[in-house]
Amino acid sequence: MDSIHITDVSPRDGLQNQQVPVGTDDKYTLIRLLARAGLRSVEATSFVSPRAVPQMADAADLMARLARDAFGLRVSVLVPNLKGLARAAEAGAQEVAVVLSATETMNQKNINMGLDQATEVSEQVLAEARALGLRTRAYVAVAFDCPFEGEVPLDRVVALSRRMEAAGAGEIVIADTIGAAAPGHVKLRMATLMQAIAADKLAIHLHDTRGLGAANAWAALEAGVRRYDSSVGGIGGCPFAPGAAGNLATEDLVLMAERSGLATGISVDGLLAAIDHAQSCLDRQLGGRSIAWLRKQQARRLA
Amino acid sequence: MDSIHITDVSPRDGLQNQQVPVGTDDKYTLIRLLARAGLRSVEATSFVSPRAVPQMADAADLMARLARDAFGLRVSVLVPNLKGLARAAEAGAQEVAVVLSATETMNQKNINMGLDQATEVSEQVLAEARALGLRTRAYVAVAFDCPFEGEVPLDRVVALSRRMEAAGAGEIVIADTIGAAAPGHVKLRMATLMQAIAADKLAIHLHDTRGLGAANAWAALEAGVRRYDSSVGGIGGCPFAPGAAGNLATEDLVLMAERSGLATGISVDGLLAAIDHAQSCLDRQLGGRSIAWLRKQQARRLA
Repeated sequence: MDSIHITDVSPRDGLQNQQVPVGTDDKYTLIRLLARAGLRSVEATSFVSPRAVPQMADAADLMARLARDAFGLRVSVLVPNLKGLARAAEAGAQEVAVVLSATETMNQKNINMGLDQATEVSEQVLAEARALGLRTRAYVAVAFDCPFEGEVPLDRVVALSRRMEAAGAGEIVIADTIGAAAPGHVKLRMATLMQAIAADKLAIHLHDTRGLGAANAWAALEAGVRRYDSSVGGIGGCPFAPGAAGNLATEDLVLMAERSGLATGISVDGLLAAIDHAQSCLDRQLGGRSIAWLRKQQARRLA
Repeated sequence: MDSIHITDVSPRDGLQNQQVPVGTDDKYTLIRLLARAGLRSVEATSFVSPRAVPQMADAADLMARLARDAFGLRVSVLVPNLKGLARAAEAGAQEVAVVLSATETMNQKNINMGLDQATEVSEQVLAEARALGLRTRAYVAVAFDCPFEGEVPLDRVVALSRRMEAAGAGEIVIADTIGAAAPGHVKLRMATLMQAIAADKLAIHLHDTRGLGAANAWAALEAGVRRYDSSVGGIGGCPFAPGAAGNLATEDLVLMAERSGLATGISVDGLLAAIDHAQSCLDRQLGGRSIAWLRKQQARRLA
């Protein structure tokens, strides 16, 4: 049976923009529930500036706890630069991720560097991480549309992906950061990238801003992609706009894959338990596009 | 440029189960707004028993108005039997649709006939409609999963589709009536049906119950399908379960197709105007999976 591998990014990409502070215990519980649901990989936190992202201020504490017991999970943490890498390694991280935006303007706005310099920094962090014996992932962000520059040239996305692979990244994660892609784009881009990058190193990170997350995931699957990022409950995006979805929801991806004959190893009931917990932490309703149907099925089973 | 053809079924499949009565003027206005948005086909009403479906009790009145002026639209109406056909023809219908469920139990529960008898009735109605010079569509309902019998054998769906084509149906509409399909099913079933039925006669009718409507539409597109049913605002399904989606939303389908390089001829702003009207008629929020994003874009344009 064909299968897909899912990295749940809710503890990092999901929580980072949430206004309600979530404590370290609650984050650790969320990760435990994800492991219990059958996830094998999570992105746990980010070693960014606590001033820039207060929600991630406990990165070292959370990582230290996970270094003691990560419930069998493969745990990745985001590091923006060499300083973040040093902090992550000191806290016991075994795997780190770098983020390289694919446009000049996005890098300038986000990290006050040009694209060339940002690429070099990512290469340096990857090299240093490898020297420390860590596993690595490299995001190529805004790999479809950039909010400042519009559609990003595909040849640049391919070139940056190749550079990240050459720098030793164990996984190249093509990110539709603002959720602007449609399946036609995904098909073309991922089919092209499959020619450039080893299939077992290529992943896709989707957002569901326009309600096309599952359709994009299917288009990626048809292009040969088998590694996905998603976020349980669709946590992510703006918490103040009801319906303005964040990341592709893990439960939507699992439902689509399993119903289409692809194994995920993940239990939907387990995901619902993780969503229950996240809801109590964030004090609002969560869930992807399938949530109403999944809750109804759950209620029937419990009745 | 490749293109798809959309039949908006909101006036019939969307409204038929709504508890709030919608007047004939309001239905006519909805259809006018759909035409203004660029739709070229609608399913306007159903000539069923007013006792069974009170919302469709004004079928003859609405059809008579559309027979005088349908805003350039191709208008189809559902007819359950020869009596319904006679009523539709008398009201001026130019195109009728029959519904044939693909399982024994669904036919028994819905129309108190077995599958064989239901098939013969559909064939009779199609023959009589052709004799009257009308255009025809034939739905093959529960063509994926049946709520009573589970997964429906594909060879039966193919055989019934062929019988409807042989009986003269101008369009064969493969319906995921309960929204149970996943893209893996859609790919297999529609690719097989494309071998059996002329491509320009094959359509798909999707529901979005599990949040996979757009993914299923993309899988059908990849299988070669170019004719779709959808419902503006996702109207349909149970009005009492928030988030329990009904039909695939026309705006989601248009967004997915246009962003993927397929022309629809339909304006999203025009669809939003139709949704505004439907919301005022039904006194609740409507919209597909893309609605939050589309409304945000609309607000920006108006600002």
